Amino acid sequence: MKDTRREHDFLGELDIPNDKYYGVQTYRAIENFNITGITLVNEKDLIKSLGWVKKAAALANKDCGVLKPEIADAICFACDEVIAGKYDDQFVSDLIQGGAGTSVNMNANEVIANIALEHLGHKKGEYQFVHPNNHVNCSQSTNDAYPTAFRLALYLKLESFCQTMQKVNKAFAAKALEFDQVLKMGRTQLQDAVPMTLGQEFHAFATTVNEDYDRLKEAQKLILEVNMGATAIGTKVNAPEGYPELCVDYLAKETNLPLTLSPDLIEATSDTGAYVQIMSTLKRAAVKISKICNDLRLLSSGPRTGINEINLPARQPGSSIMPGKVNPVIPEVVNQTCFYVIGQDLTVTMAAEAGQLQLNVMEPVIGFALFTSLEYLKNALETLVDKCIIGITANKEHCANLVMGSIGIVTQLNPILGYEVCASVAGEALLSGKNIHEIVVVQRKLITQEKWDEIYSLENLIHPKLINS
Amino acid sequence: MKDTRREHDFLGELDIPNDKYYGVQTYRAIENFNITGITLVNEKDLIKSLGWVKKAAALANKDCGVLKPEIADAICFACDEVIAGKYDDQFVSDLIQGGAGTSVNMNANEVIANIALEHLGHKKGEYQFVHPNNHVNCSQSTNDAYPTAFRLALYLKLESFCQTMQKVNKAFAAKALEFDQVLKMGRTQLQDAVPMTLGQEFHAFATTVNEDYDRLKEAQKLILEVNMGATAIGTKVNAPEGYPELCVDYLAKETNLPLTLSPDLIEATSDTGAYVQIMSTLKRAAVKISKICNDLRLLSSGPRTGINEINLPARQPGSSIMPGKVNPVIPEVVNQTCFYVIGQDLTVTMAAEAGQLQLNVMEPVIGFALFTSLEYLKNALETLVDKCIIGITANKEHCANLVMGSIGIVTQLNPILGYEVCASVAGEALLSGKNIHEIVVVQRKLITQEKWDEIYSLENLIHPKLINS
Amino acid sequence: MKDTRREHDFLGELDIPNDKYYGVQTYRAIENFNITGITLVNEKDLIKSLGWVKKAAALANKDCGVLKPEIADAICFACDEVIAGKYDDQFVSDLIQGGAGTSVNMNANEVIANIALEHLGHKKGEYQFVHPNNHVNCSQSTNDAYPTAFRLALYLKLESFCQTMQKVNKAFAAKALEFDQVLKMGRTQLQDAVPMTLGQEFHAFATTVNEDYDRLKEAQKLILEVNMGATAIGTKVNAPEGYPELCVDYLAKETNLPLTLSPDLIEATSDTGAYVQIMSTLKRAAVKISKICNDLRLLSSGPRTGINEINLPARQPGSSIMPGKVNPVIPEVVNQTCFYVIGQDLTVTMAAEAGQLQLNVMEPVIGFALFTSLEYLKNALETLVDKCIIGITANKEHCANLVMGSIGIVTQLNPILGYEVCASVAGEALLSGKNIHEIVVVQRKLITQEKWDEIYSLENLIHPKLINS
Amino acid sequence: MKDTRREHDFLGELDIPNDKYYGVQTYRAIENFNITGITLVNEKDLIKSLGWVKKAAALANKDCGVLKPEIADAICFACDEVIAGKYDDQFVSDLIQGGAGTSVNMNANEVIANIALEHLGHKKGEYQFVHPNNHVNCSQSTNDAYPTAFRLALYLKLESFCQTMQKVNKAFAAKALEFDQVLKMGRTQLQDAVPMTLGQEFHAFATTVNEDYDRLKEAQKLILEVNMGATAIGTKVNAPEGYPELCVDYLAKETNLPLTLSPDLIEATSDTGAYVQIMSTLKRAAVKISKICNDLRLLSSGPRTGINEINLPARQPGSSIMPGKVNPVIPEVVNQTCFYVIGQDLTVTMAAEAGQLQLNVMEPVIGFALFTSLEYLKNALETLVDKCIIGITANKEHCANLVMGSIGIVTQLNPILGYEVCASVAGEALLSGKNIHEIVVVQRKLITQEKWDEIYSLENLIHPKLINS
Repeated sequence: MKDTRREHDFLGELDIPNDKYYGVQTYRAIENFNITGITLVNEKDLIKSLGWVKKAAALANKDCGVLKPEIADAICFACDEVIAGKYDDQFVSDLIQGGAGTSVNMNANEVIANIALEHLGHKKGEYQFVHPNNHVNCSQSTNDAYPTAFRLALYLKLESFCQTMQKVNKAFAAKALEFDQVLKMGRTQLQDAVPMTLGQEFHAFATTVNEDYDRLKEAQKLILEVNMGATAIGTKVNAPEGYPELCVDYLAKETNLPLTLSPDLIEATSDTGAYVQIMSTLKRAAVKISKICNDLRLLSSGPRTGINEINLPARQPGSSIMPGKVNPVIPEVVNQTCFYVIGQDLTVTMAAEAGQLQLNVMEPVIGFALFTSLEYLKNALETLVDKCIIGITANKEHCANLVMGSIGIVTQLNPILGYEVCASVAGEALLSGKNIHEIVVVQRKLITQEKWDEIYSLENLIHPKLINS
Repeated sequence: MKDTRREHDFLGELDIPNDKYYGVQTYRAIENFNITGITLVNEKDLIKSLGWVKKAAALANKDCGVLKPEIADAICFACDEVIAGKYDDQFVSDLIQGGAGTSVNMNANEVIANIALEHLGHKKGEYQFVHPNNHVNCSQSTNDAYPTAFRLALYLKLESFCQTMQKVNKAFAAKALEFDQVLKMGRTQLQDAVPMTLGQEFHAFATTVNEDYDRLKEAQKLILEVNMGATAIGTKVNAPEGYPELCVDYLAKETNLPLTLSPDLIEATSDTGAYVQIMSTLKRAAVKISKICNDLRLLSSGPRTGINEINLPARQPGSSIMPGKVNPVIPEVVNQTCFYVIGQDLTVTMAAEAGQLQLNVMEPVIGFALFTSLEYLKNALETLVDKCIIGITANKEHCANLVMGSIGIVTQLNPILGYEVCASVAGEALLSGKNIHEIVVVQRKLITQEKWDEIYSLENLIHPKLINS
Repeated sequence: MKDTRREHDFLGELDIPNDKYYGVQTYRAIENFNITGITLVNEKDLIKSLGWVKKAAALANKDCGVLKPEIADAICFACDEVIAGKYDDQFVSDLIQGGAGTSVNMNANEVIANIALEHLGHKKGEYQFVHPNNHVNCSQSTNDAYPTAFRLALYLKLESFCQTMQKVNKAFAAKALEFDQVLKMGRTQLQDAVPMTLGQEFHAFATTVNEDYDRLKEAQKLILEVNMGATAIGTKVNAPEGYPELCVDYLAKETNLPLTLSPDLIEATSDTGAYVQIMSTLKRAAVKISKICNDLRLLSSGPRTGINEINLPARQPGSSIMPGKVNPVIPEVVNQTCFYVIGQDLTVTMAAEAGQLQLNVMEPVIGFALFTSLEYLKNALETLVDKCIIGITANKEHCANLVMGSIGIVTQLNPILGYEVCASVAGEALLSGKNIHEIVVVQRKLITQEKWDEIYSLENLIHPKLINS
Repeated sequence: MKDTRREHDFLGELDIPNDKYYGVQTYRAIENFNITGITLVNEKDLIKSLGWVKKAAALANKDCGVLKPEIADAICFACDEVIAGKYDDQFVSDLIQGGAGTSVNMNANEVIANIALEHLGHKKGEYQFVHPNNHVNCSQSTNDAYPTAFRLALYLKLESFCQTMQKVNKAFAAKALEFDQVLKMGRTQLQDAVPMTLGQEFHAFATTVNEDYDRLKEAQKLILEVNMGATAIGTKVNAPEGYPELCVDYLAKETNLPLTLSPDLIEATSDTGAYVQIMSTLKRAAVKISKICNDLRLLSSGPRTGINEINLPARQPGSSIMPGKVNPVIPEVVNQTCFYVIGQDLTVTMAAEAGQLQLNVMEPVIGFALFTSLEYLKNALETLVDKCIIGITANKEHCANLVMGSIGIVTQLNPILGYEVCASVAGEALLSGKNIHEIVVVQRKLITQEKWDEIYSLENLIHPKLINS
């Protein structure tokens, strides 16, 4: 056995190392696309999904009589191997590539053909028995097989991402309970406003993350619609009657997902709306998580000259020059990851807008943006939970002191004294440096100490009731 | 009667022209915010919504016993006047402003107070009888009243925008029917692919616009949740027991919308997730409409050296130097409007991320971005329908000639001749300049003329069936 | 005299009100483009620049013998009227328009032709004497006349914007001097770092604004290169020999600007690089101004539960519910304007990328983005200076107290005690709540009081010198 | 010798594998930051730059007398080893990290300390002899050492990127020469305009790339300004007198670059303006390269139903279903890479805006964005030159036929027949399908055949001269 085999396509011949399951077209992709160094092998969910798609197509083709049973069966065997992850290292195309996914699709077609060939006792490259295009790609085009596999992979990655979102939600919810008796100052526009609890603040973080979770799950449903059978541009050219529905049914069974066939296959073939929606929703989550991390950094600022209401767990010395300095490194890294995600949303926007006529040729970079964003942000959020949220502690006494020393608590006296009197008290406090209690009760005797105690009890500060004069 | 009245706030006194219904705080806003020259008066839906909010609050306050009936009634009278649009010119704050909407809220409070005062026989500025803060703003803060009014206004604008989207959808759907027998070449990656009909192409435009419509309606629901009663930061401080629910009920009745109260008022007060979602969904629509306009421009390129499959209605001479040149000016202006919208999505992203602690102070620019985007894109789409889509005609014969002269139609022979033979035919066609028919039927005699006619009948090109040898 | 005159173009005839100086093509633009409601009349610099361009072209055409002197002179007269601003209200096209500026160019051609006609004793519309295309637009195309006028207008607006930037720079520099003895805590990552002065902090603001000024002036030079004479696509078709150079010379004289002719007119006609550069540089300025405003808001946070090192001048009551609350409304409105500018940078990016072949048809929205960004941000910065920066005061004593109570000042002891001992001191301070002085001098006696006084003198804190043991 | 050594920082102790040159703080970074999987080892220019910075600092410290000569020399030895690339695998921090670069700086400090220790005959971890903080980081902070190293690395990467830009420029310029006699139709707004040569079109590509090259070289200069000696926040705390200037001098000598010291070290420490500028300029290049690739795809569209003026070299079969289809895969992958770069510009914008007070903690993601953008786009451009531009061929005859069959050539007759007659000829041509020659010379006899031949000679079409009647 030679070390290489000769393969050809209509551009000419190439020698392929014999240990490679991929063939001439994948080889050309390797030569053509050397952009990021991040290849298919990093996206195991996509490899698995390609296996599912090719298997479903083979089964449907067998049923339709356009693929001989023995060839279809061999292809199915090969697909199962691919699904099981045994040939991951044979998926070598750069994630950013030209050709609208043709290289990915042909990479799968070639690897599966060669596995099937060996399974049938042939040699790699003896494509007269199992051909990458005529058999493995039978009744398919890159333009239906690739986006369908991409959608399945995206579905899986979103599933995993959403689990992490729930973990973040739960971590904040647990802290909300822990901090439900910690009275603290609420702030609007960075100015002292009115009291609240630290528990309420963390509960809001939990709520907001949960809303993003809901939106992501909503968006995720959009990619359950696939376009198998559309072939080249959605006219189903070269697909046998009944194949599209059959193929989607098989795929649904294989994946255990409620997949449906697009009602307008022409539209489905060029449309990237669902990707824009998912990426935008991920951006929404990034925007809000970044806001939360900004808050965590603000609330833990200090320790002496900032707000210092909470302590983030110390993860590493914070300075090469300032001894004892501990920085909020975890929220910082999460912020930065969010900025990456927000940037990638723009990449997807540009790519989606650039689609022309019957196909959007920019899908690979859409995939790159979505896959890396989901992965990096998932990593960042797992880090946020494990290395930050669960270790946060409250400076309860300091929090309470800030509240009682604030001017904002005069708001509670509005219903009794009216906005204008309260504004005058606030003005005096600001100028003199005095506390509200001193001015209202001691100096101006506007209310009694008893009334003060009623209004400014912990219970009433946390769950304010309207108290009139 | 003097020409001015003297008003004061805790920063001092100011003389206000007596014909103005707004007061000292609005006046300060005019002085402080001179940014875009686009003021509240341009957003009549927002003025109306402020009227609704203030009326619902007055009714709920009356029921709760914190507002005397005669004052509440006078406020309601004033609100009805505002809702009816009679005082639009008194709403003068620049749309981009600091203070998180306080100037808008106080503008409404002051105008309503002065209308109510006159209604009760008092003079403007006699706030001891009806006070902007103590009465009109009773049980409210800017931080619940403003975002609630903003949401109602946004809901109305979205409603109107969605109607325009439906109009676009219908215009494309009508053309799809008109063009359903126009055979043309499908193109992927700008390269000749396989045949389709122009009707299918326009049907895909209709479908894709309709999907965006669905997503927008979905997103629109998110802003039916409001935070009345949250007051300053969501703790309901100074709001009487039961007021939040009552207020939302009244507001739902007034507006005839199924409004609900946010379950987490702390979160609701600082959260801008719904705005991000709506703006992103609008961006999605812009991305896809831009793609459609790109396609219309491509398909009408020429008339002699481009694709020239369709004619856009001539709207104006296209050049100051090139006689007879007619340009696709309507799709061009729509493209540009889409780029504006996509840019504003970034503005919203930045603003949403910049929210801190218990409030997002950047809401005014979020409003600016959403309002201008909805208005400009609505205008652009109405233009697209009326001045472009409905007048598009097809160059049917030219379209058919392009198909039969193409190489791509060899794809239809794959199931009979196999991919590799077809590739060789395609290669010869490309080199020699010959047509597929000539090579396949005349020269190589790979299929009979009869078979050719079967495969390349109009019916089979439009609705391809798999034809084997 | 009838109230209307009949004009025609190759699409047909239209009746134009006789008091209008614009003609049939402008009228079609009004009908076609109803997008933003913001029209040419808002951009007086652009109207003036169109006058300059048309005048320079007429003069060059006269010299080249392709325009009769009496016609050229009448056009020059008309241009001077336009330059003087007497016909601003005749410039009516929406700023966002299709046709790559043809409507703007024809608006100018028609208005100038009709002014010239009346000047020569003819009636408006008697274009056989002075024709918008044959005479006013002689040797020109929209594709050279429009971008040249746009560049001149942009140059003027940048000039004005840069003056405002200098004003901001000077305002910060003045404050830097005022605050040069205010010792305060420096902060990195929102954590207490080492001491500095408030003067240094404001000096850094001044420096950074000045750097943006320099970059803007650099970018401004790029638009001194114009493409007059390129005509339709840069091949100079229909322009007489020598005209391009002559025309640019006349234009340079008229405007008193060192204009040059593009060396590659083909490239110049489709290139938008200079606009991208200017918009990006403006974005850079917006990014940094936004950072400064974030800092101003942080430093003035409180007044009791925040950093509270500085006071921003109170501009308006900050809350409709919280008495005495004063918010940083001016920095807030500047932040929001910056977000608008950053969004418009994306609009320009999209528009620039969308140019195809020999022209970028998206220039109008590029103009819209640049013009509104320059205007809004200029307004915002003028506001920032006048209503905020110049009134900022320092809480000097509070600032100093924060420094001496901080842990960060242990850094100064590194050279004497080493990083590890200092880290242990810092750790104890953090746990115990004690001050550095107490631990180092009183308790552990690591240095003498005398040494302490030397290291922690105001002078050494402000201008630290390395002090060894 | 044990397999691990015990190290400690003020958070506690950790066992470090003895074969690792990095220590406890790097180890914590590995634990904390697991985001992208892309680590320092991928950025060899940054590792080299860290070596330069640490060496320059050691030399300056020796001169200032704050570092003993034998320690300084050992550090210099270690730095040389690092610069030579011998310890690349010891640089392990994730590129996206919290802590503003502290982990990168400490990674360098620890590796260099341990190399120096072994060089001096000590064991790794015996930091009493050479300490990562006290010695390697002497007179430095992360906040000056890290950005300085980052700038040097960025300078190197830009240098390499700019060379590739020149390669692109030259490749287009060569094609411009090759195609200088290929007459073709110019197009504006995708509509037929006037003739030009393909050489002119490619020359414009060359010109535009060259302008971006110039802008990048301009921006590159900004990062020659560094802030060594600023230490923590720019006050030079703990740096000996004269050290900053000395250190920069040594660094300039080591790197052979004209480095200068920032005049305002406070500003320099938090400023990210230069990064924003460079990234924006890179975005500008991406925008224009994307436009060029769009054009290449348009010009090669077809082969039968598109423009088909040029042929891109076939790189791979273009379809898994359509035989013989060849796609413009190289421009496609370049477009996508450009979209990535444009997205990363937004990431940098967000990160730059998020800087607070005396430091921008988001610098690592700025580095990530810049480094990956420069690398991916460089790869894409090298691919564009080698696998596309140099192989482009022209369809000369087809190009000429398109010109002479076009209506746009009527423009050349404007000076003779006037705009309105020409418009009428154009109109008839459009309606009848006739050519301009037929209408003008044969039918309407508006000019003689002789005049026609003069005007429409190849020479006059390529270099038009104004020809009057």
